[in-house]
Amino acid sequence: MSHFYRLVVSCPDRLGIVARVSNFIAGHGGSITEANQHSDLASGRFFMRYEILADSIGMSKETLCEAFAPVAREFEMDWALRDTRQKRRVVLMVSRESHCLVDLLYRWTAGELDCEIAAVISNHDDMRKMVEWHGIPYHHVPVSADDKSAAFAEVERLVEASEADSIVLARYMQILPPDLCERYSGRVINIHHSFLPSFAGAKPYHQAYQRGVKLIGATCHYVTEELDAGPIIEQDIHRVSHCHTPDDLVRFGRDVEKTVLARGLRWHLEDRVLIHDNKTVVFA
Amino acid sequence: MSHFYRLVVSCPDRLGIVARVSNFIAGHGGSITEANQHSDLASGRFFMRYEILADSIGMSKETLCEAFAPVAREFEMDWALRDTRQKRRVVLMVSRESHCLVDLLYRWTAGELDCEIAAVISNHDDMRKMVEWHGIPYHHVPVSADDKSAAFAEVERLVEASEADSIVLARYMQILPPDLCERYSGRVINIHHSFLPSFAGAKPYHQAYQRGVKLIGATCHYVTEELDAGPIIEQDIHRVSHCHTPDDLVRFGRDVEKTVLARGLRWHLEDRVLIHDNKTVVFA
Amino acid sequence: MSHFYRLVVSCPDRLGIVARVSNFIAGHGGSITEANQHSDLASGRFFMRYEILADSIGMSKETLCEAFAPVAREFEMDWALRDTRQKRRVVLMVSRESHCLVDLLYRWTAGELDCEIAAVISNHDDMRKMVEWHGIPYHHVPVSADDKSAAFAEVERLVEASEADSIVLARYMQILPPDLCERYSGRVINIHHSFLPSFAGAKPYHQAYQRGVKLIGATCHYVTEELDAGPIIEQDIHRVSHCHTPDDLVRFGRDVEKTVLARGLRWHLEDRVLIHDNKTVVFA
Amino acid sequence: MSHFYRLVVSCPDRLGIVARVSNFIAGHGGSITEANQHSDLASGRFFMRYEILADSIGMSKETLCEAFAPVAREFEMDWALRDTRQKRRVVLMVSRESHCLVDLLYRWTAGELDCEIAAVISNHDDMRKMVEWHGIPYHHVPVSADDKSAAFAEVERLVEASEADSIVLARYMQILPPDLCERYSGRVINIHHSFLPSFAGAKPYHQAYQRGVKLIGATCHYVTEELDAGPIIEQDIHRVSHCHTPDDLVRFGRDVEKTVLARGLRWHLEDRVLIHDNKTVVFA
Repeated sequence: MSHFYRLVVSCPDRLGIVARVSNFIAGHGGSITEANQHSDLASGRFFMRYEILADSIGMSKETLCEAFAPVAREFEMDWALRDTRQKRRVVLMVSRESHCLVDLLYRWTAGELDCEIAAVISNHDDMRKMVEWHGIPYHHVPVSADDKSAAFAEVERLVEASEADSIVLARYMQILPPDLCERYSGRVINIHHSFLPSFAGAKPYHQAYQRGVKLIGATCHYVTEELDAGPIIEQDIHRVSHCHTPDDLVRFGRDVEKTVLARGLRWHLEDRVLIHDNKTVVFA
Repeated sequence: MSHFYRLVVSCPDRLGIVARVSNFIAGHGGSITEANQHSDLASGRFFMRYEILADSIGMSKETLCEAFAPVAREFEMDWALRDTRQKRRVVLMVSRESHCLVDLLYRWTAGELDCEIAAVISNHDDMRKMVEWHGIPYHHVPVSADDKSAAFAEVERLVEASEADSIVLARYMQILPPDLCERYSGRVINIHHSFLPSFAGAKPYHQAYQRGVKLIGATCHYVTEELDAGPIIEQDIHRVSHCHTPDDLVRFGRDVEKTVLARGLRWHLEDRVLIHDNKTVVFA
Repeated sequence: MSHFYRLVVSCPDRLGIVARVSNFIAGHGGSITEANQHSDLASGRFFMRYEILADSIGMSKETLCEAFAPVAREFEMDWALRDTRQKRRVVLMVSRESHCLVDLLYRWTAGELDCEIAAVISNHDDMRKMVEWHGIPYHHVPVSADDKSAAFAEVERLVEASEADSIVLARYMQILPPDLCERYSGRVINIHHSFLPSFAGAKPYHQAYQRGVKLIGATCHYVTEELDAGPIIEQDIHRVSHCHTPDDLVRFGRDVEKTVLARGLRWHLEDRVLIHDNKTVVFA
Repeated sequence: MSHFYRLVVSCPDRLGIVARVSNFIAGHGGSITEANQHSDLASGRFFMRYEILADSIGMSKETLCEAFAPVAREFEMDWALRDTRQKRRVVLMVSRESHCLVDLLYRWTAGELDCEIAAVISNHDDMRKMVEWHGIPYHHVPVSADDKSAAFAEVERLVEASEADSIVLARYMQILPPDLCERYSGRVINIHHSFLPSFAGAKPYHQAYQRGVKLIGATCHYVTEELDAGPIIEQDIHRVSHCHTPDDLVRFGRDVEKTVLARGLRWHLEDRVLIHDNKTVVFA
């Protein structure tokens, strides 16, 4: 199967970026299979993502990076080049609600998520059997309310040992410590079960029920130190009415959560999400 | 054309309400064309709405009300009976943005809104020509930032003089004084240009842009003293992306606002919205 | 846990049905927890569904049925009364695509589908391990293109032996023989991977791609003799664009299919779907 | 206000197109404000749309076209370059239903549609007053069932006399003659009141009601000789249930129709729609 080089760039917007980059690629015979660009007029920043058929370029990723470095310097680019053969390694974290985890595992099995799942970490032991059935290591790290630091030290150790590149909080109901958030900045994805910024924090469906909203939602976002306030990747909603109890909201919400998380994660894995300030550019 | 009696009831839930009411109606030969019920388990309250073919009951509205009064007392009902021949009289209030007003006038002309439009009141004179073209009185009541009380005294006088039953804030960018809100409690409808409770207050689309949400929305709600916090009647959303500027959000938002307001107002006019605490039951 | 009697009625519309039925229930002390009615003006037919707290009525289901029979006769009702303790027994049929099956099994495990899954029947052996892991019998019945009758005789035998009440075609890519459709009339649910009546028959996503539609969909419907033409229970859609290949459509479609099928099946299991002519009344 | 040159290209996909074109633009100092590309893998065709700040290029449109012609020849491009100062001239055609016309006129007044409305042509005289109020010429061309050719000769004459560039059938319930379709190929936009390919032809909402679908829709498409079969630009849907009569479907449908038509027309006017075979690439 063919593999690709994905070039992702963010830089100050100015004349000739596309010309320079597309020339560079064409000059090496690179065949572009997908190209996305965005000029953000408010911030004066330019974003691009190119997917290049690797075989069309007679170069290793490393050589290509070296060749591209001068272009990148010239335009002050934040940039990355990925070879799709090197799959991202993902750690999934989960508490008691299994719907997101089960959904991600199914999509992974079905080939919808191009990554390796390095491990599942949970503060409960409930899903061990199901996870291990998929051939994935399961780590039970209980988090006691009194002393969370020991637990998170263990989590950090496990994440590191698994050589994970990204972390997915698939309804992990604990708050990650700031240093872990920072070390994996832009690579920790959370699903929050409300239409943010409404109903941040605990029990969002009950908050939504209390307020009498007519739509509930879910939000997939990158985790930052401030709770439920990181860059939003994707959101969706489900219609509700006076007929529905908080339990119904929770049930509808499950479907929205898992769809939104799966979409967000897929885009992350395909290098389609670029972060700028506290917002995202998503080349979906 | 046939007219209807609409019976709308809210009362403590207990055994035999439906039996008692439907017996009463059947006993007078009443033909029910639409019936809705809802038992709210959390509050223990029961809601119902019956639409009865008026000609099937050989009684005036007044006689029917007298006959029903004992049933209502027995079950401690909040209730109302309306004859659809007596159209509600509505005052529309508007500032500079015309899209909601134009939309409501069009729907009214097309027969989608069963009411009389008693008047349009605006703090600007911009839409006079268009409104008067529809044969509707237009009142320009400027609101000066220094002294709003004189303006609102005039607004109250005009609303009263128009014998209005309901008030629609169709993007009226002023805050109604509390006593007016209270006098028309449950009969002042506002359209807020965000997905409440997110982005209450001023410039919601700019707030939404700043936060980087992926869906924007609009909320139709009854006005209470607390700003943008009254019972929600209807909400809807529109998908946005990093490509869209605040101006795009405003443009998309116009379509959502007018649709959501029109839906909410129609339900209000058809007695489909029952308020309980700070929430609504909508028999849509 | 409390159980319920569900009364589902369809009859010619006339005066006093609700009064008669609600009187009957109230007369036996029955506490109604949910009530739905619909008068179809075009056909002159009336539909109702009452959910009654079983403990509030001091009667077995059988006694209650006997007591109700005269009322039913008086109004020429098609009717059924179910005790929610007697769960429906469902047979799932599947070919090679597993997404709907996996989704239904997960929802069933999570308590979203109130039924017993009597068996899974497939013309392939691929999903045996996964199904048996859930403790559900798996029957592999190959269907040869030359002689399908032997296979379907075996299918019928298995369905009968499982004492199934309903059959779900969860992407079973074979056409059921007419006599089986008829024997289980109104109890065989199919998911078709298009927005019917568009793209009936084979390869609907490829048909949709060819036609260049901007939305793809899925349809949950009861199976009748005519292919993909039975009463529709539920439909939903997903937005697509020129960017998407037929494979993308298939992938998006999986999410729509499983959601639509799960919703339709849940409503069927909760006796919320009433069939009339070739259409459904869904008290969702 | 700044104006733009819009370059729209469709050509066989091969190496170096983007490099060549973006070099060309950068070489003339052109500042690209929006860029879109699409490689259609199935057809091997490449599509692009560039929006260039006109003032950044020190050239008239004509000079720029001359300069670009060799590039276009080299890559066998179908291409067009438009100066946004030269607004498209549009003729709107309408029968008795006014909702689409009123909506387009409002959006046009509000600045959402960047075009000149050259005239409105109708087979009825109903909307004259409203149209003329907007300062737009109104032509009443009755179409008799016996002899349509005279009417369409007059329509052609009027369209030509108005120097129209595009024609919008805003619920014009007559079928345009083939030669008119062909002369304005890719520039006649129709709104069909169903989710095509379902329910082509007459009375689609009644067809939809009859079939018992749970979603109704509308389709904006380019007109070709084959009725309701041209390239689809945009579609959307609205949820319906057993509660809704054909009249309700018509009413819901009006909202979908006008939104879908307005979106499609806006994209057309902004040169965002490229036709290939019987499909569209929409750079929305």
